Amino acid sequence: MNKIRAWQMVGKDHPFEKVELPIPKLKDDFAIVEVSGCGVCHTDLSFWHYGVPTRHELPLVLGHEISGTVVDGPTNLIGKPVVIPAVMPCGECDLCKAGRSNICQKQQMPGNDFHGGFSSHVITPARYLAEVPDATLLNHTLAELAVIADAVSTPYQVMVKSEIREGDFAVIIGVGGVGIYAAQLAKIFGGNILALDISQDKLDQLGQVEINNTLNISGMDIREIKKAVKEKCREMGALSNRWKIYEMSGTKAGQELGYALMGIASTLSIVGFTMDKLEVRLSNLMAFDANIIGTWGCKPELYGNVLELVSEGKLKIKPFTKSFPMSQINEIFQQTLEHKLMKRSVMIPDFE
Amino acid sequence: MNKIRAWQMVGKDHPFEKVELPIPKLKDDFAIVEVSGCGVCHTDLSFWHYGVPTRHELPLVLGHEISGTVVDGPTNLIGKPVVIPAVMPCGECDLCKAGRSNICQKQQMPGNDFHGGFSSHVITPARYLAEVPDATLLNHTLAELAVIADAVSTPYQVMVKSEIREGDFAVIIGVGGVGIYAAQLAKIFGGNILALDISQDKLDQLGQVEINNTLNISGMDIREIKKAVKEKCREMGALSNRWKIYEMSGTKAGQELGYALMGIASTLSIVGFTMDKLEVRLSNLMAFDANIIGTWGCKPELYGNVLELVSEGKLKIKPFTKSFPMSQINEIFQQTLEHKLMKRSVMIPDFE
Repeated sequence: MNKIRAWQMVGKDHPFEKVELPIPKLKDDFAIVEVSGCGVCHTDLSFWHYGVPTRHELPLVLGHEISGTVVDGPTNLIGKPVVIPAVMPCGECDLCKAGRSNICQKQQMPGNDFHGGFSSHVITPARYLAEVPDATLLNHTLAELAVIADAVSTPYQVMVKSEIREGDFAVIIGVGGVGIYAAQLAKIFGGNILALDISQDKLDQLGQVEINNTLNISGMDIREIKKAVKEKCREMGALSNRWKIYEMSGTKAGQELGYALMGIASTLSIVGFTMDKLEVRLSNLMAFDANIIGTWGCKPELYGNVLELVSEGKLKIKPFTKSFPMSQINEIFQQTLEHKLMKRSVMIPDFE
Repeated sequence: MNKIRAWQMVGKDHPFEKVELPIPKLKDDFAIVEVSGCGVCHTDLSFWHYGVPTRHELPLVLGHEISGTVVDGPTNLIGKPVVIPAVMPCGECDLCKAGRSNICQKQQMPGNDFHGGFSSHVITPARYLAEVPDATLLNHTLAELAVIADAVSTPYQVMVKSEIREGDFAVIIGVGGVGIYAAQLAKIFGGNILALDISQDKLDQLGQVEINNTLNISGMDIREIKKAVKEKCREMGALSNRWKIYEMSGTKAGQELGYALMGIASTLSIVGFTMDKLEVRLSNLMAFDANIIGTWGCKPELYGNVLELVSEGKLKIKPFTKSFPMSQINEIFQQTLEHKLMKRSVMIPDFE
């Protein structure tokens, strides 16, 4: 290996270009990972199409959901299958020391701060690489585990932060590429799950993970949805308070619904992102003793737990991912943009 | 004692009427407390003037900030000086068992669910009465300790829930009757305090508790305030992230400011109440990994900690309370309504 081969973003909406990049001398505490797979995330579309600037200037190789094998770096890691955390903290600053490493202001994100995973190899900080246990690879390809770095780890941290417990009524608003894992995880944490979406196809997918309480809210107004959700809660025998509400859709309508569903001792988690504003009576939070949690990324130290859940077969990723040769990157980005793909796409390097 | 003498609310904005109430047979787990003092809270004004309905029908004796001496009830309590918690949970329901007793839906509040403290005696559930240690009475009257039940206990719970730590930059928006204790408590919990208010008189009061970083925000817009707060933060050498923001004013302007001040890993606590709505970009919470906490009342089990802080002289209530004979209740309510009183009023029974 003399060069890294990669698909590089050169400009907004421009086709990705296949390039060769030199391999610089490897710094201490860095590793070279040979990419097995790299997931296509909505954040990649934000960079490529929606005009969100990458922190590192263009041209840049995108991709932050990466799995692969360490081929150079710390000797104890060489040859190990790993997932590269989507955000890697510095480990030293006030935020890291205060247990808030997921929002570390010196954090490094592949495909944003440095060349990412749509590539043959990634040069990455080594400190937080998540080793994949052998058990996980008995029933998964290393490539498909790429989606753990973001699509799965982010909702995992959300569950931890929302303090969901056995018996809690958990409402998932939006069961797309990340919501599908939020629903599974909320169930694993003991919640009684009700999934809401405007797409019947997405709701139907949940049957594969034995989540059967769903509500197609297409065309309903907030008052109707609220009434229907309360009825479902009663039917399911779930608790009438302490609702855990997870806003995964990243839409104004979803956030308005999430806010309206809050009641006594509720926790609303904001996971999806939208620039839209909405009008709220903030004092409701006081009257309900409720709270709203915004949550960014996932601490690297939680990746081990996620990998364990996948190994044990409790958390299913296989039905919700689909692999493509990386040379199809331009078609796949376009199709993702047009919402033509139901499953999370994982791009597999095919440079030879 | 054959009768209870009390000042009763008979209708919105009507003068309180002096009445005699019969003493019913005391039920198990109830106590009769001879009132030493009863604080006048904004919530009392909400009932009396702003049209918020009491849960028990009128006529009703208001008042939920009560201290006094147990004269009947469980034998281990008789003769004991106590503070009656402003909200008393059932102790048995799902919320109580989940550690959320402060928002128990069967909670009992004096002066709302049953006759309150503008009275010679109060008949109250006995289970959660907070015994006042002898040490506290060495340098306080029992009457002035009445304000602990709400004005002090509520911000105490807020501090606990906001997870404020040593070195955190704590911004208190509004240092009125409750904010003055929020500021003291945030300091006791280790915070670097900056107090904001539009009243210079209120800010000047803080000198008495050695809080010297204040900002008179009268006439400033949000952008100017934000800039000034950031400068103060730097001057004070406080942390630039993890800000703890406490909205105590219960105004739309205060809540808008609180929201705008949020940044990386901030926690905004909503303590003041207003019916007004505001427009917010909820996704900021996700981008900042920030959260908003609404907080109601205070768990009875935290009252002991508050009494200890008062005993030790760490938390000062004397400079911020003023006693009046209870027979002046009508004048004092009127003056409170007109914002003529700088200190929290404590009404002392003077029925003989």
